[in-house]
Amino acid sequence: MLVARIEITAGPARGTRTYAEVNVDADGIAQRYRPVDHPFKPHLASPGSLTGPVPAEQAALLAPCAPRVVLGMAHNTGYDDRLLPPQAFHKSPHSVIGPGHPIELEPCHDSVDAEGEIAAVIGRVAKNLTPNNALEAIYGYTIGNDVTDRHAQATESRWTEAKSRDTYTPLGPWIRTDLDPSDLTILLGDNDGLTSEGSTSGLARGIADVLMYITSVLTLHPGDVVLTGAPGPSHRLRPGAVSRILVSAIGELTNPVVEVRRSRQPI
Amino acid sequence: MLVARIEITAGPARGTRTYAEVNVDADGIAQRYRPVDHPFKPHLASPGSLTGPVPAEQAALLAPCAPRVVLGMAHNTGYDDRLLPPQAFHKSPHSVIGPGHPIELEPCHDSVDAEGEIAAVIGRVAKNLTPNNALEAIYGYTIGNDVTDRHAQATESRWTEAKSRDTYTPLGPWIRTDLDPSDLTILLGDNDGLTSEGSTSGLARGIADVLMYITSVLTLHPGDVVLTGAPGPSHRLRPGAVSRILVSAIGELTNPVVEVRRSRQPI
Repeated sequence: MLVARIEITAGPARGTRTYAEVNVDADGIAQRYRPVDHPFKPHLASPGSLTGPVPAEQAALLAPCAPRVVLGMAHNTGYDDRLLPPQAFHKSPHSVIGPGHPIELEPCHDSVDAEGEIAAVIGRVAKNLTPNNALEAIYGYTIGNDVTDRHAQATESRWTEAKSRDTYTPLGPWIRTDLDPSDLTILLGDNDGLTSEGSTSGLARGIADVLMYITSVLTLHPGDVVLTGAPGPSHRLRPGAVSRILVSAIGELTNPVVEVRRSRQPI
Repeated sequence: MLVARIEITAGPARGTRTYAEVNVDADGIAQRYRPVDHPFKPHLASPGSLTGPVPAEQAALLAPCAPRVVLGMAHNTGYDDRLLPPQAFHKSPHSVIGPGHPIELEPCHDSVDAEGEIAAVIGRVAKNLTPNNALEAIYGYTIGNDVTDRHAQATESRWTEAKSRDTYTPLGPWIRTDLDPSDLTILLGDNDGLTSEGSTSGLARGIADVLMYITSVLTLHPGDVVLTGAPGPSHRLRPGAVSRILVSAIGELTNPVVEVRRSRQPI
C-alpha cells in the first residue's frame, strides 16, 4: 500500500490535512487519494468531512510524516564503511519538506549536495531491536534526500550547520508499506538526468542493522524517520535545477532548488 | 509567572494533562496549580473539566514542555570558548524527562556527567534573530540537565551516543516567564551537597547571542528548547544519588539516578 499525507486544495474541505491511500496508474502517477486513519496517532481519526476519494488534482502532497526525530547514518555508504563504527546524527525535524517543495540555498552555500536514501518510517515504539524484530518496527519506506553542506561538514564536527538547515530534508512522495528493503536501486540526479546509481544492497550495514544500532542507543517512536545511508554518489545542488531521486518500487521525489537571500525578519 | 505542565493524579480528572500557573510558598515549594491555556498551541484550550486550582498533592510535574527540537551549545562554557566558533548539537526530544523522573544509566556507562544549564523555551517561530528581538522570542526559562557520557563524547564525534540516550535531558521543574537571564547563578550537585557553581554571566556567549547564532542556521518553533551552555563544572552521576540543580530565580530540578540493565524487549 502507498500512504501519503495530503492537503486538500479545492472544494469545501480545502485546507484539510489527512493521511490517504494513494491510487497510482501504470506509470506510477497518483490518480486518487482515499483518506485513511492516522497511522501514527490512532486516536486521531481521518477528518469526517472527507467521505470519499479525492482526485489527485484536488490535493497537494505533504511530507509523508511529521517526525519528532530524524536520524541519519554516518559511516554507512559503501562496504568499506564497515571498518568504521556505526554513527548516527540528528537532523532537525523542522528541516523536513515534502515533494515539490523548494530546497533553499543562500548564495554563500555553494557546496551543498543531495544524497539519495531510503528513509525508514517507524511504526511502533522501538528500543533494543533484535535481528528478529528490527524490520517489524518499520511502518514503511519513503525516499529521503539527506541534503548536506560539504563545506560546513568539513569544518563543524557536530554537522548541525551541514545537515539541519531549513528545507534540508525532503521526504516523499509517499510511504510504501509492503517492501523488501534489502536491494532497492536509488537513482539520483536533476532535470538534466539521473546520473548517480546505488542500491541498498551496497550499504555498509543493512537497514535492520541500522535500526538495531540506533535503538541500542535511544528509543524511536511512531512517525520518526531514519535515513539509512546513501549507497551511491551524491549530487551537487544548483539553484534553478530540480533535484530528483527515483526508487522505482516507491516513486520519485523531486524538489526544485532555489536561491534565497537571508532576511532578518522581525519575529 | 511560573508555568508548569502537570498530570492530575487524583479525583475525577485523574490522568488529565494540562499547563498550569504555579503558586509557590516563601520557600519556593509548589502549593497550587491553576490550569491555563496551552502556551505553544493556542488552539488547544485548557481541559474543560478543570475549572479551579489543583492542590499540589493532587498533581505530578511533567517536563514543562514537549519540544520537537532540543539543541545544546558546544564551545559555550567559560570565556575562553569565545576563541572557538559557536556550535550547536541536537539532543533527542525523546530524551526529555521531567522533575523527579529517574536518569537511567546502564552498568557500562560509568563516566556520565550532569551539566547544569539555563534552558530557553521558545515562544514564537524564530529565524534570523537580531540583538533587538532575540530575547523576545523566548517564552521563558527552565532548568536543563544536559546529561553527557564523557567516554562516548570522546570517541563519537556526532555526540548522539553521548547526549541523546533516553532520560538524558531532564527539564524543569517549571518555566519562569519573567526573568533577566544575564546573571543567573546555577548550583549543581547531588544529595550530598551542591558543589558546583557558575553564572550565565560567565558563558562565552550570552543567551541572546546563542539564539542569534542558532536561528541564523535553522528555524525554531514554539515549545522548542535551547540549552544555553554550562558555565560551571559538571558533576559525575552515580546510581543511587539524586542529581540536583538549583537556580533560585526558577526553582530546583532533582532527578534520582538509577542503574538499569538493557533488556531486549519484544516490540
